[in-house]
Amino acid sequence: MSADLVQLVTTLAQRARAASHLLATASTETKNAALVRLAELLPASAGTLLAANAKDLAAAKEHNLTGAQIDRLTLDAKRIVQIAEGVRQVAALPDPVGEELERTVRPNGLEIRKLRVPIGVIGIIYEARPNVTIDCAVLCLKSGNAAILRGGKEIFHTNTALAALVAEALAQAGLPRDAVQLIPTTDRAALTTLLKLDELIHCIIPRGGESLIRFVAENSTIPVIKHFKGVCFVYVDKDADPAMAERIVVNAKVQRPGVCNAAEQLLVHADAAGTLLPRLARALLEKKVELRCDPVSAAILEKHGLAHRAAAPGDFTSEFLDLIIAVRVAPSLDDAIATINRDSSAHSDAIVTRDAAAAQRFLAGVDSATVFWNASTRFNDGFEFGLGAEIGISTDRLHARGPMGLRELCSYKYVIIGNGQLRG
Amino acid sequence: MSADLVQLVTTLAQRARAASHLLATASTETKNAALVRLAELLPASAGTLLAANAKDLAAAKEHNLTGAQIDRLTLDAKRIVQIAEGVRQVAALPDPVGEELERTVRPNGLEIRKLRVPIGVIGIIYEARPNVTIDCAVLCLKSGNAAILRGGKEIFHTNTALAALVAEALAQAGLPRDAVQLIPTTDRAALTTLLKLDELIHCIIPRGGESLIRFVAENSTIPVIKHFKGVCFVYVDKDADPAMAERIVVNAKVQRPGVCNAAEQLLVHADAAGTLLPRLARALLEKKVELRCDPVSAAILEKHGLAHRAAAPGDFTSEFLDLIIAVRVAPSLDDAIATINRDSSAHSDAIVTRDAAAAQRFLAGVDSATVFWNASTRFNDGFEFGLGAEIGISTDRLHARGPMGLRELCSYKYVIIGNGQLRG
Repeated sequence: MSADLVQLVTTLAQRARAASHLLATASTETKNAALVRLAELLPASAGTLLAANAKDLAAAKEHNLTGAQIDRLTLDAKRIVQIAEGVRQVAALPDPVGEELERTVRPNGLEIRKLRVPIGVIGIIYEARPNVTIDCAVLCLKSGNAAILRGGKEIFHTNTALAALVAEALAQAGLPRDAVQLIPTTDRAALTTLLKLDELIHCIIPRGGESLIRFVAENSTIPVIKHFKGVCFVYVDKDADPAMAERIVVNAKVQRPGVCNAAEQLLVHADAAGTLLPRLARALLEKKVELRCDPVSAAILEKHGLAHRAAAPGDFTSEFLDLIIAVRVAPSLDDAIATINRDSSAHSDAIVTRDAAAAQRFLAGVDSATVFWNASTRFNDGFEFGLGAEIGISTDRLHARGPMGLRELCSYKYVIIGNGQLRG
Repeated sequence: MSADLVQLVTTLAQRARAASHLLATASTETKNAALVRLAELLPASAGTLLAANAKDLAAAKEHNLTGAQIDRLTLDAKRIVQIAEGVRQVAALPDPVGEELERTVRPNGLEIRKLRVPIGVIGIIYEARPNVTIDCAVLCLKSGNAAILRGGKEIFHTNTALAALVAEALAQAGLPRDAVQLIPTTDRAALTTLLKLDELIHCIIPRGGESLIRFVAENSTIPVIKHFKGVCFVYVDKDADPAMAERIVVNAKVQRPGVCNAAEQLLVHADAAGTLLPRLARALLEKKVELRCDPVSAAILEKHGLAHRAAAPGDFTSEFLDLIIAVRVAPSLDDAIATINRDSSAHSDAIVTRDAAAAQRFLAGVDSATVFWNASTRFNDGFEFGLGAEIGISTDRLHARGPMGLRELCSYKYVIIGNGQLRG
């Protein structure tokens, strides 16, 4: 690795750390002023942004991008307006910094206050969506954190233009430009260097495919909050309302199949499978969903002449992100819970039942970030939770689990006020 | 690395994961029954424990241990009773599992509950204190987590005997023995294997010296919560009450110099240094504290004929854990804040002042886990905070910062209750 590259990334992180001290005590008004200015600059700079985006689009073929990937990295005037609107929404959210989480007075008179504070410097490692650049920059800024952004090479020119606007908005609000910095190279060695700067950077959030996230987790000495895949289950209990089960299974699978909280796995209790499974299968087939079945569910669908195929073993732990669902029959509620704890990604798992006792056992026993009773897994989302925004959905168990909003981008500190107390 | 060792550690972690599912839904009564049984077994098994400890003590010379190290690993009847008393105290603490942290009902009728749940499986990597084995086992058990313990080779026989008692207490309470397991080898390769089992283990807590913690952080793909060193500052402002400043500086430095929240660094505002520093120095010298000074503070002490030596540059970021303090004069409050943010370990830092505005700037600007106004840094401690117990003091910013008690050994999950809601 070149010494220049190490120097470049280290200097950038040092500047971010210095900026983070200023941001941590910046007022809500100042931070919001920078956000509102950014929301103005974005549409006003559409020409520059689209020209930069055109360079990335021109290079898209040499990066062998698919049509869907090219669509994701494409900016147009409407998308720029949407991105700016998202910035205004974050400006309107309450500032999490300084919130008092706890306050106690000890018998010796010491007052102990636990206050929400920014984490410090956050590194965001992501792929090729330009909205991520702005989303992450503004969520970090609003929560008082300095951000270091490292996006994919496919979107480098667009990101550079966007980062310049963020820096301009920061400067115009009197905040340090270094509060949000884009790494000015997509060299992998720069990323590897960054991931070792644990004295300067306090948290890494990777956003993207599983291989990126795994690379980051394996190479980072900085704490990582992972936003892994969603292998989400809907379990239809023997006492499920059939019409509700049908609606929830279909909504969870087809309303937006390409996202992490869409259902990929269907379990049906053995006592109800004979009657319920054909109904669920018909509804899914009507929506063009392919059913990949275990032998028991296959036999039931076979009897009813319903299209299906035999599942491969890997299907039962797969995130299809497509109109495909794996189907199994569960001999019992306990078996369903054990299957989910073994095969799901612990992201979003649902039970459909009228039996409150069964629901309580499921909700307590399934060890996932979000568990649902009689609702679609698609609700596992920061906006649906009322957080106002989210930087992702954590599949980790430390710090933040499930949807991560502004509060989850904060740490806390203890402020202790005494009048000369000594320890005896 | 031998395939056998990998197999051994992997199997142990798989058993811990299976046990964690049972522990997560175990009742408070059952967990407390195991703790109370352990508190009974400890003194009742003193003979076995002391015999095991004698083996470790016999090997202490070949491990080249110092007198202080040998003292730390020595068990006697009194220490066993103290350890058992600590177990009873944890049994008496409230169970954090199941506490409702938030509850909202969304406009669509979805009820969103955020509940405290165990993290899952926690690995504790530590050195040679037998009380850590029991402390960590019981804190993990009470908080519903399965624990994997890996202590130092110097204490292996004692730990093996202690772990057998824990397993016995678990079994007698009807809980899985695998809920607390000691790795039955101190081979470094077993540790390296453990630190990569991120599908089975959810959190690693290293306790010990800096090199151990760094080794763990660099080799783990599992999230680590670090409990690093304390390079703690006391800053005496120009408006400090001189008598209070003297008491706090002396208490923070000498009350127990070998611990992480003891002061190692003294800063005195330039305007007060001429009068205050000689007084503080006399009080410290009376307690046999060595003063390592910057040129400005050295000149003041020189003038008053007070013993001191010139500090080496490394002294200003050192954790002495001894009767030594580094001394500097700060030209201003802002300079003091910047110095602390650069040179402290962000653990416990204090200001002594009568000036509320100066105190507020210090408390907001110093980016440390715990900041004090007119109180000794020695109060940064889970017991002093009223947590009832602590597994350590986190110097990380994610998940837990400062003293880590039972609640900080927990994660949370979202439980969502609907009546058929679909996402539109």
